[in-house]
Amino acid sequence: MTDKPTPSSSGLDLQPGAAFAETDRQAVYQAIATRRDVRGEFLPDPIDDATLARILTAAHHAPSVGLSQPWDFILVRSPRTRQKIAEIFADANEQAASLFPEQKQAQYKALKLEGIATAPLNVCVTSDPTRGGPVVLGATHMRDTDLFSTVCAIQNFWLAARAEGIGVGWVSILDPARVKVALGIPDHIRLVGYLCVGHVRGFFGRPELEQRGWRTRTPLGELIHDEFWGTPADAVSQALACTELASNG
Amino acid sequence: MTDKPTPSSSGLDLQPGAAFAETDRQAVYQAIATRRDVRGEFLPDPIDDATLARILTAAHHAPSVGLSQPWDFILVRSPRTRQKIAEIFADANEQAASLFPEQKQAQYKALKLEGIATAPLNVCVTSDPTRGGPVVLGATHMRDTDLFSTVCAIQNFWLAARAEGIGVGWVSILDPARVKVALGIPDHIRLVGYLCVGHVRGFFGRPELEQRGWRTRTPLGELIHDEFWGTPADAVSQALACTELASNG
Repeated sequence: MTDKPTPSSSGLDLQPGAAFAETDRQAVYQAIATRRDVRGEFLPDPIDDATLARILTAAHHAPSVGLSQPWDFILVRSPRTRQKIAEIFADANEQAASLFPEQKQAQYKALKLEGIATAPLNVCVTSDPTRGGPVVLGATHMRDTDLFSTVCAIQNFWLAARAEGIGVGWVSILDPARVKVALGIPDHIRLVGYLCVGHVRGFFGRPELEQRGWRTRTPLGELIHDEFWGTPADAVSQALACTELASNG
Repeated sequence: MTDKPTPSSSGLDLQPGAAFAETDRQAVYQAIATRRDVRGEFLPDPIDDATLARILTAAHHAPSVGLSQPWDFILVRSPRTRQKIAEIFADANEQAASLFPEQKQAQYKALKLEGIATAPLNVCVTSDPTRGGPVVLGATHMRDTDLFSTVCAIQNFWLAARAEGIGVGWVSILDPARVKVALGIPDHIRLVGYLCVGHVRGFFGRPELEQRGWRTRTPLGELIHDEFWGTPADAVSQALACTELASNG
């Protein structure tokens, strides 16, 4: 990482492509493995601006289709606005509960699924499909590539926050149209993620839904196909058996 | 990172929520800042199974709506299949070029936008909206939450690969229906990302599209709103001015 820049054949700035040092590699895997969706563990302490600036800068370094950078971030701290969003959540969550089979409803209702009012900061992340102009490089043949870029920004935000000891919870049980009205978001802008953000009293060692018996982790080998859908990838699956990312991931 | 597990009040495994050590935090930011969309810098050397297993495990540790883990990964190495996909790209790219304003077309055509045949490994990443059952926790009120989970897995894959010195390029200039036929992907499964993956002769110091004058990086302060859409977030924007993630990000 301390090597000098090498001019590429085209005269562009091309940096050496070596792997990170072992401890740096481990740090990246530690962030990935210990990142959690935080709902009930937020502390009220505010996040200082320098830390928040680093996390937002990490989000802004996400890949984006045609370098369109379609994301925007609305920082919501006002208790009144958070209360409004919490009500939008409550309405949606009541509807959601009724959709589950009867024997799952009590378990669903017992889960805490958001920290809108307890996290000191909410961040609404949106996507502007018009950001790159009428035709965006890379967005001509697949729908929703701007949304994908914005989700990459959210995942960068989440991992950077974990490294800073800051918890993030993504709340999707919301009527996006009502949230857009509450935050003054223009019609053509799409709501992608509503994040609760704050210091935490801890991160769960394993995903909370797994620990609470809602669902289990799928064995990864079942999700890897060799050359064609449905053909098991035996060699890689064997290697998976010896892979552990971090001590408590 | 070496603290003992603390049982939480609910008896669940809750780990201390401290920030990473400074060097570990820097490593996470280094991965985020130096990750690039790689198109023309792939080397033919194969990726060993242990490295690939770590990168896939990182992807599998992405957040997912209701812990649905909707992703699948098809590993494509066969030159014949990659040739087929390269043809699907070529057709789409010709159509794409014609959509740009005339004065932009020559510049577009000069860009190398994929490494399908030169990268030794292609990974097709898909999303199964039925994975979590008929009703998925968190997927009841916003469309496409399964896609968002799968994109988080792709971003984890990308960052882990960067830490391993492996380059990734996301190709979106493809007719997804034709790619699904070529890889035998069932109708109800959605194609999210088609990735070219391999060792590289280097990573560009800044995004290639920026260096080649296609688009510039938007100042992040313009994308941050305070409480309500359109209100500048002055304090955080001031902090942004002093923020640099990594030496060559």
